[in-house]
Amino acid sequence: MKILLTGGAGFIGSHTCVELCDAGHDPVIVDNYVNSSPESIRRIEKIVGRPVPHYEADVADKAAMDRIFSENDFDCVIHFAGLKAVGESVAKPLLYYRNNLDTTLTLSEVMQAHGVKKIVFSSSATVYGNQDTVPYREDMQSAGCTNPYGWTKYMIEKILEGQAVADPEWSIVLLRYFNPIGAHSSGLIGEDPSGIPNNLMPYVAKVAVGELEKLSVFGNDYPTPDGTGVRDYIHVVDLAKGHVKACDYAASHTGSEIINLGTGHGYSVLDLVNTFMRVNNVNVPYVIAPRRPGDIAENYADPSKAKRLLGWEAEKNLEDMCRDTYRFQTQNPKGYRS
Amino acid sequence: MKILLTGGAGFIGSHTCVELCDAGHDPVIVDNYVNSSPESIRRIEKIVGRPVPHYEADVADKAAMDRIFSENDFDCVIHFAGLKAVGESVAKPLLYYRNNLDTTLTLSEVMQAHGVKKIVFSSSATVYGNQDTVPYREDMQSAGCTNPYGWTKYMIEKILEGQAVADPEWSIVLLRYFNPIGAHSSGLIGEDPSGIPNNLMPYVAKVAVGELEKLSVFGNDYPTPDGTGVRDYIHVVDLAKGHVKACDYAASHTGSEIINLGTGHGYSVLDLVNTFMRVNNVNVPYVIAPRRPGDIAENYADPSKAKRLLGWEAEKNLEDMCRDTYRFQTQNPKGYRS
Repeated sequence: MKILLTGGAGFIGSHTCVELCDAGHDPVIVDNYVNSSPESIRRIEKIVGRPVPHYEADVADKAAMDRIFSENDFDCVIHFAGLKAVGESVAKPLLYYRNNLDTTLTLSEVMQAHGVKKIVFSSSATVYGNQDTVPYREDMQSAGCTNPYGWTKYMIEKILEGQAVADPEWSIVLLRYFNPIGAHSSGLIGEDPSGIPNNLMPYVAKVAVGELEKLSVFGNDYPTPDGTGVRDYIHVVDLAKGHVKACDYAASHTGSEIINLGTGHGYSVLDLVNTFMRVNNVNVPYVIAPRRPGDIAENYADPSKAKRLLGWEAEKNLEDMCRDTYRFQTQNPKGYRS
Repeated sequence: MKILLTGGAGFIGSHTCVELCDAGHDPVIVDNYVNSSPESIRRIEKIVGRPVPHYEADVADKAAMDRIFSENDFDCVIHFAGLKAVGESVAKPLLYYRNNLDTTLTLSEVMQAHGVKKIVFSSSATVYGNQDTVPYREDMQSAGCTNPYGWTKYMIEKILEGQAVADPEWSIVLLRYFNPIGAHSSGLIGEDPSGIPNNLMPYVAKVAVGELEKLSVFGNDYPTPDGTGVRDYIHVVDLAKGHVKACDYAASHTGSEIINLGTGHGYSVLDLVNTFMRVNNVNVPYVIAPRRPGDIAENYADPSKAKRLLGWEAEKNLEDMCRDTYRFQTQNPKGYRS
């Protein structure tokens, strides 16, 4: 299949691009490099051993997208493009709503106009909000999101679901990611956050190489085995393979489906930090800090629907995630700018 | 206060414009007349006895809105503009999301740029979804909307609430309307739906004057006193007065508040039809039809928050609503086209 990847130069997009190539598909990338680097495309091409077609364009630019769809006969789209920093979304909500909604609306309009009606969307477990029970299942009603970034994911799910109701030819897979970490085993592609990382693992990696002084662990008095927050971390290569399966599913079904991509296992902050130190033989100094408002004790996926519908399950463990993250960090101390 | 009314030529906008003038405010209308008529502005001016400034523009047109905000020093905005036909929203979801979200995002961006930070938004009880209990209270969690029109109201509430978090100078009042019916007592302004009406009262009015043959009552086996669905109908003039109070509230508070505008009383479909026939001495033939999927037995507002925060409560009864609707219908058999 010829598959368009919006935001395909980003962390999850780049790994998905590699797995699509490995599975014999033809990915095409569109990215505006606002939050990514064209260097990642050169790295992808190095890994897969062939050129990957790519366009520099904003997905909200209707004329540009129309041209891309006129020049290509896409079977499916995977929609990664979007702003994703939680804290920034709280400070600049209009920027997030404008960007993430406009890109999705323009993409949907252009897809409809060109008769491309299969889409896999990069949603998030944040759409569940803070549920009272674990694991998180796709049929749970959202408890409401806690920030504008999360709300944009929620809204985009609803916008796409509306398309599936209005036009029964559409096939829509809404993938709710848990916490993607790790990197490709080559060390060539990985997560390259700009500025201070928002998420735990990239922060740990930067502390490990001395770029940041120490990690703050927010709360050690949660009702969890070691008192720190428990989350479902998933290796980005497993996640990428889930996208390949989701495209296969979209090719042979219509309607819309929400599907979790997680491991089904919860690891605490200290599990992750201690595993990182052990497998990489490196020190990660940390301090215990107060709980952050809005954080909950634990969440993890029920991944059984992905297994049932897609025939997919995560294969890599926390050790793999820690090892691969550190490899990318040490091989690319300045990310793609090195 | 100088107050901008987006969609001010529409049903609720026009009545609110009259009440704002009566209360000594200076309303300014912006409308693209996609779903309304400039004739309604001439009627408003006849009622209030003075000109009402108005602009023909699309609220999603940033350059036009920027010009309007440059030419006026607004104290507050009431945001009515938006597409509102439930059935059409199911068939054309992208049209609804694009239009209703773009107008709100552009309006918010222009308000922020011009330092106008008080807004009253025309939301809807549809945001509650189908709750298990009545009355509907503002602190209930949404059960999810049942159509894209409803989701746009839900999303716009979230977008505006995000502004109040990001910038504590914003003052946001989200008014959740129940079912606005009736018309101004002059018979000069009222509801003028294009095509077959989507809602009960305008349909009843058109049957009463012989423009439509008969009313279909969807379901008479609900667990309600007469078996037909029970809703909270509110006179549009009461609703309009609620907007005046909401502007006063916004002028002296910051943050965001969700406030129901309803009477707190439920009337059944047959209550409404029988009252309409009695007070207007006219026949409204009807047939019982099967329930519509998605309809629920009853809903009505808990209006106590509006009384507490705004000092507002509905004053008109169902007889007033039926009488005033029929007056507008008979005086304007072709609506504003007559």
